[in-house]
Amino acid sequence: MKNSAGNALPHVLIIGCGFAGLFAVKALAKAPVRITVVDRTNHHLFQPLLYQIATAGLSTPGVAAPIRNILADQNNVTVLYGEVQRIDSARRMVTLDGEQALDYDYLVVATGASSSYFGNERWAAYAPSLKTLQDAYDIRRRVLLAFERAEREEDAAQRATWLSFVVIGAGATGVELAGAFAEIARHTLQGEFRRFDPANARVVLIEGGDRVLPGFPAALSERARQQLERLGVAVWLGRRVSDIDADGVQMGSDRIAARTVIWAAGVAASPLGAALGVPLDRAGRVLVEEDLSVSGYPEIMVVGDLAAMPWHQPAVPGTAPAAKQMGTQVAKNISRKLKGQATQKFRYRDYGMLATIGRNAAVAVFGKLQVSGYPAWLLWLLAHIVFLIGFRNRIVVMIDWAWSYWTFERHARIVADPATDDARHRPQP
Amino acid sequence: MKNSAGNALPHVLIIGCGFAGLFAVKALAKAPVRITVVDRTNHHLFQPLLYQIATAGLSTPGVAAPIRNILADQNNVTVLYGEVQRIDSARRMVTLDGEQALDYDYLVVATGASSSYFGNERWAAYAPSLKTLQDAYDIRRRVLLAFERAEREEDAAQRATWLSFVVIGAGATGVELAGAFAEIARHTLQGEFRRFDPANARVVLIEGGDRVLPGFPAALSERARQQLERLGVAVWLGRRVSDIDADGVQMGSDRIAARTVIWAAGVAASPLGAALGVPLDRAGRVLVEEDLSVSGYPEIMVVGDLAAMPWHQPAVPGTAPAAKQMGTQVAKNISRKLKGQATQKFRYRDYGMLATIGRNAAVAVFGKLQVSGYPAWLLWLLAHIVFLIGFRNRIVVMIDWAWSYWTFERHARIVADPATDDARHRPQP
Repeated sequence: MKNSAGNALPHVLIIGCGFAGLFAVKALAKAPVRITVVDRTNHHLFQPLLYQIATAGLSTPGVAAPIRNILADQNNVTVLYGEVQRIDSARRMVTLDGEQALDYDYLVVATGASSSYFGNERWAAYAPSLKTLQDAYDIRRRVLLAFERAEREEDAAQRATWLSFVVIGAGATGVELAGAFAEIARHTLQGEFRRFDPANARVVLIEGGDRVLPGFPAALSERARQQLERLGVAVWLGRRVSDIDADGVQMGSDRIAARTVIWAAGVAASPLGAALGVPLDRAGRVLVEEDLSVSGYPEIMVVGDLAAMPWHQPAVPGTAPAAKQMGTQVAKNISRKLKGQATQKFRYRDYGMLATIGRNAAVAVFGKLQVSGYPAWLLWLLAHIVFLIGFRNRIVVMIDWAWSYWTFERHARIVADPATDDARHRPQP
Repeated sequence: MKNSAGNALPHVLIIGCGFAGLFAVKALAKAPVRITVVDRTNHHLFQPLLYQIATAGLSTPGVAAPIRNILADQNNVTVLYGEVQRIDSARRMVTLDGEQALDYDYLVVATGASSSYFGNERWAAYAPSLKTLQDAYDIRRRVLLAFERAEREEDAAQRATWLSFVVIGAGATGVELAGAFAEIARHTLQGEFRRFDPANARVVLIEGGDRVLPGFPAALSERARQQLERLGVAVWLGRRVSDIDADGVQMGSDRIAARTVIWAAGVAASPLGAALGVPLDRAGRVLVEEDLSVSGYPEIMVVGDLAAMPWHQPAVPGTAPAAKQMGTQVAKNISRKLKGQATQKFRYRDYGMLATIGRNAAVAVFGKLQVSGYPAWLLWLLAHIVFLIGFRNRIVVMIDWAWSYWTFERHARIVADPATDDARHRPQP
């Protein structure tokens, strides 16, 4: 692609098409650049609703859309499905799987974060975490099959361990998952089992700190805890996990016997930050300048959960709105550079925070306004439908939610794997 | 569970909850029996629409529903998720995975069929077939990623092999898949790629016999072939496949270079037929008596695609309506036996046949009435919505289809696997 003077347009390479990457691409729609977007999946994921895949409330097309479909009408973009292997910032060259090389004039790294087990990586096999669609399918399979195994289990004590669900970490994801598990047990599965009452399933939410939703004001954390307990979740605060194995969770001398454990306690930066060869913070995130570029490489920008901004007070949260704002800012900065203008500093604008707990249960904060319960839940509903990518997704999600609200059903309770495929969930002989 | 006289009720064990198994269970709702249903998945699959999962037109909850949800209100049923390992017909005992044993008074085997490669099992790796949800996900992934790989391929000849799709076998499944692939290439993906026009993708349907849809009257086969070609499918009749490898399909001295090949050419009976230790036909199906019981074991009945009925003329097709009728018949026969009455012979009632080819394109036959094109397609639509299991599925499928009809979009185009997970589809370095 060339400009009217016949010169090749500058090439902007964007790695990762989450909220930060996607909003950078979109904000460059009219810029005189060629854009290449590389993502290792074929979809943009609406991460705030991913827990609904894990809890069978929505099916995949409700929360994910093909990247090239979203960007089909933006003619200055080429979308490539691939995984970046190396970044050579000196030669301005990125290498994909299959050794395919791409050069760039501007590089935007937006590869986000994955889960961290704080050095206990072997816990991952027993306590999966939730970051990708595959993670969500895995959690859904474990939870649904635990009830199936309980129905086949003839020993009452063993059955109780199949019917115990532990969520570790009471941030937004942990709270959402624990609340949804309690609703599945108490409502969705009612009347479907012959050997036990699913309402007797035990859901425990374990948190190392002294309150749930630590990012929220303390009063809302307390409201959230009350709403969780009302749904039937046991909330254990100030408890540190010392070990996780196939049969349960150890906290010092205390133990919960449980076959299903979910890890929602920590995030680690994408390894691509380290591939840049620039200074990182302790969590592996890239320390960026105030214009989100990388020290010494003004043509490289890092956005979203991979960016660390110790100079920004208060801290920028690891949320979709923050990622979007960063993506839009770097697009603006690239356009400014092309015009020979100085880049702008990034300032996060806080429009408020929402967390859902379950049916009619949520908390929300907008500046000084704090809301909980049904009004907060309505706000959450509205906000998530408004911000969903794609008109079709919105309709589908609205219909699914309306259906679930009236019937208590969760339609996406399908496990493709045959019974004997999953060794971990096989009944003990 | 006991009857009013205090005796334990007879135990009916049903293996497999496809159409035959499910309709047997439902028809026993008021019978004085305890029923156990064992299935190796947690869902009943609406098999006639499975190709829509493989072609991204519907997402999973549109065609699959949890078995225990369908049967929640039928109190005489226990649903177990498990896989049968052995049947001991002398001791009337069935062993599940995990060595769990179940006895029975009546046994209904309804485990259907899987795909057959006629002794060339190594072709399965290169040419997957379509029987289960996992098969459908696999085919969808291969087809969508072939277009992704084509966008990354810099060599034109290599790109052409990524853009060649071959379907082997022109029965209903092969015709549906080939038609849908052509529509995806010509409509769904339009404008989404920068290095090629997806409308130039090549879809070839190979059939060993001299016409497509051999189960239909010859005139409708010809109509179907015309409709396929109009959609852009090349139909090759009378061609026998001699080999399949990672790069294409060999037919004697002819060869098609193609990275994506789907096998829709043969079915084999479930191995559980052989586990009964009774006479089988050449395809491995159980030769049943006229009341669908097994010779020498009047308490064992075989229904659905696993049953062979050489005594029935004309032959009973391997379709959902035939399976339903068999399931209902054995339920009736069990009830009759409990009352001391003689069992009834099974007679298949032919209400007609439908096959869809694509948008506004189908063929249908009802007795002497033959229909093709738009009216047949409307009939197909109506029939499949009417017979879908579950009210919710019907609504969702109607909305999805209406959306796709107007927009040409296919919403379920999500591939969860990251780019570097699938060695087979990695570009050649």
